[in-house]
Amino acid sequence: METKTLLSAIEDELKKQVARLDEPHTQLYHEMLTYHMGWTDEGSGTKATGKRIRPLLVLLASAAVGGNWEKTLPAAAGIELIHNFSLLHDDIQDKSETRRGRPTAWTIWGVAQAINAGDGMFILANMAMGDLAETHPAETVLQGERIFQEACLNLTRGQHLDIDYEKRTSIETGDYWKMISGKTATLIATSMELGALFGGADADLRFAYRNFGHYLGLAFQVQDDILGIWGNEAVTGKSAASDLLEGKKSLPVLFGIEKDGNFAQRWTQSNITEADVPELAAMLEREGARQKAQEAADQMTDLALNSLRQADPKGEAGDELFALAKLLLIREA
Amino acid sequence: METKTLLSAIEDELKKQVARLDEPHTQLYHEMLTYHMGWTDEGSGTKATGKRIRPLLVLLASAAVGGNWEKTLPAAAGIELIHNFSLLHDDIQDKSETRRGRPTAWTIWGVAQAINAGDGMFILANMAMGDLAETHPAETVLQGERIFQEACLNLTRGQHLDIDYEKRTSIETGDYWKMISGKTATLIATSMELGALFGGADADLRFAYRNFGHYLGLAFQVQDDILGIWGNEAVTGKSAASDLLEGKKSLPVLFGIEKDGNFAQRWTQSNITEADVPELAAMLEREGARQKAQEAADQMTDLALNSLRQADPKGEAGDELFALAKLLLIREA
Repeated sequence: METKTLLSAIEDELKKQVARLDEPHTQLYHEMLTYHMGWTDEGSGTKATGKRIRPLLVLLASAAVGGNWEKTLPAAAGIELIHNFSLLHDDIQDKSETRRGRPTAWTIWGVAQAINAGDGMFILANMAMGDLAETHPAETVLQGERIFQEACLNLTRGQHLDIDYEKRTSIETGDYWKMISGKTATLIATSMELGALFGGADADLRFAYRNFGHYLGLAFQVQDDILGIWGNEAVTGKSAASDLLEGKKSLPVLFGIEKDGNFAQRWTQSNITEADVPELAAMLEREGARQKAQEAADQMTDLALNSLRQADPKGEAGDELFALAKLLLIREA
Repeated sequence: METKTLLSAIEDELKKQVARLDEPHTQLYHEMLTYHMGWTDEGSGTKATGKRIRPLLVLLASAAVGGNWEKTLPAAAGIELIHNFSLLHDDIQDKSETRRGRPTAWTIWGVAQAINAGDGMFILANMAMGDLAETHPAETVLQGERIFQEACLNLTRGQHLDIDYEKRTSIETGDYWKMISGKTATLIATSMELGALFGGADADLRFAYRNFGHYLGLAFQVQDDILGIWGNEAVTGKSAASDLLEGKKSLPVLFGIEKDGNFAQRWTQSNITEADVPELAAMLEREGARQKAQEAADQMTDLALNSLRQADPKGEAGDELFALAKLLLIREA
């Protein structure tokens, strides 16, 4: 079971699901979705599709509990479509003009159509989940759908907090964990849980997989925050320290604000320019924020790997899960 | 079974469903939804909630096929939540500043939060549908969910066309029917079909109910288009002829454009002011557009009532359905 095989099956399933909109009268609507998914128009290809990590986790979890990954494909597609629904709306909400190196949908087709395209992606995700009824008992499908919808609701809770925090001058680290639990960790946790459920795992085992996904998501986000300030542009593909320039309230920044030292003083004056960034990053590091964030990331990483060991994933898929976890968690700075 | 009893049960069920977001950390998120539903803040009350026609149709259909309407309440709530999800996003897409006499959500909380509130409403609608598993077999629930999701997709197809048509100078009446089938008729057709399904009707009977809803929706929309130009402000609650001022491509206008006479000439010059409206409306009437639209409305009304007779709804609920159909279709001009 090679990763390449899984990724190719995921892409086929996604295309099948999105083709529900491929009709003579809604060609343009369909095109918005295939563009965003990275399949059509200028710049399409693997760089534009994203890594499909979440659906890969669904399939690996289902295989690692002894299930048939092919029968779990609609759940994998459902998760990836939800992820892309949230990106479509997120880009509008954040006024982001590029995504994966290409213009975002709203910059091409306008805000009204991009909202609608996101809504369509969301509905297709739900329809994909319904397709699981072809290979699983109706009760299991309904159980999976409930887990899936709870995840969607958590995603919007996280999004609500994220938008709300942008306006607030002070937020605490407790707020931060709630926000990233919703925005980042929920969908990864649910990927693992749904994979385990449709692979045939019992409640205890599903819980272990879910926990792994939850902590993996948290660790990944904190690591991403660290790279957003001290990362190597060549590794992350985005400008290092751009988070400071954008005024993003990431975990190191919140630690710096809590510390109430030189960084906090400069940060609250705002008007941060590119020239200020190296000194601000250095201040944060001197005041211990980088170390504290790294400790948090390490702690979440330990919790993730402990949960995965507890889940005791089997076979090749199990090895792949450990490998993938390490790849995601131990990224080069 | 009084309508008042049904409406009160619908409101309770809706509040129960929306309360899923009533948590300490997302109070503001919850408030956006309760505000839009018409329950909280300035101007709340029956005027702000809307008429709840769609959920009422769900319950009446379920009772009219001999089912227990109380067990169908989650489907009624699901339909009404989808309707309100579409209004939340529609108001952003159309840049509408008021809805039911109150400021729209995006004008109060901003576009980003209002998009998210609509997304939340959508998820709550799906969760409401899942609640039907408490009182119905899992297979029936999955069948109902598929019908529900097809309706959602049709709604976004209609919305896509509506936004697209605003930019186009020429659209044909065929485009119009496709657009209102999605935007208006789908949800009413689905209200009837879901009511019949969860009331225990077989496929033929469900089809008759669905047809009734479909033609009811089309007839209602065409009637609304006519009132939008020649309606009495006191009856409709909105300024008569405002559709002409807004440049809305309603059915009479499309007939006028097809005719390619004086109206079409003036219409394509645009820059229509309030002073031009009476003459434009008179032109349209002279060129036969009002009569053609009325004939279309009458034809759809006949088809709706024929379908309802074919469905042969039973008991008090059946009488209510006929009464409601007549109330909706034969509105004073």
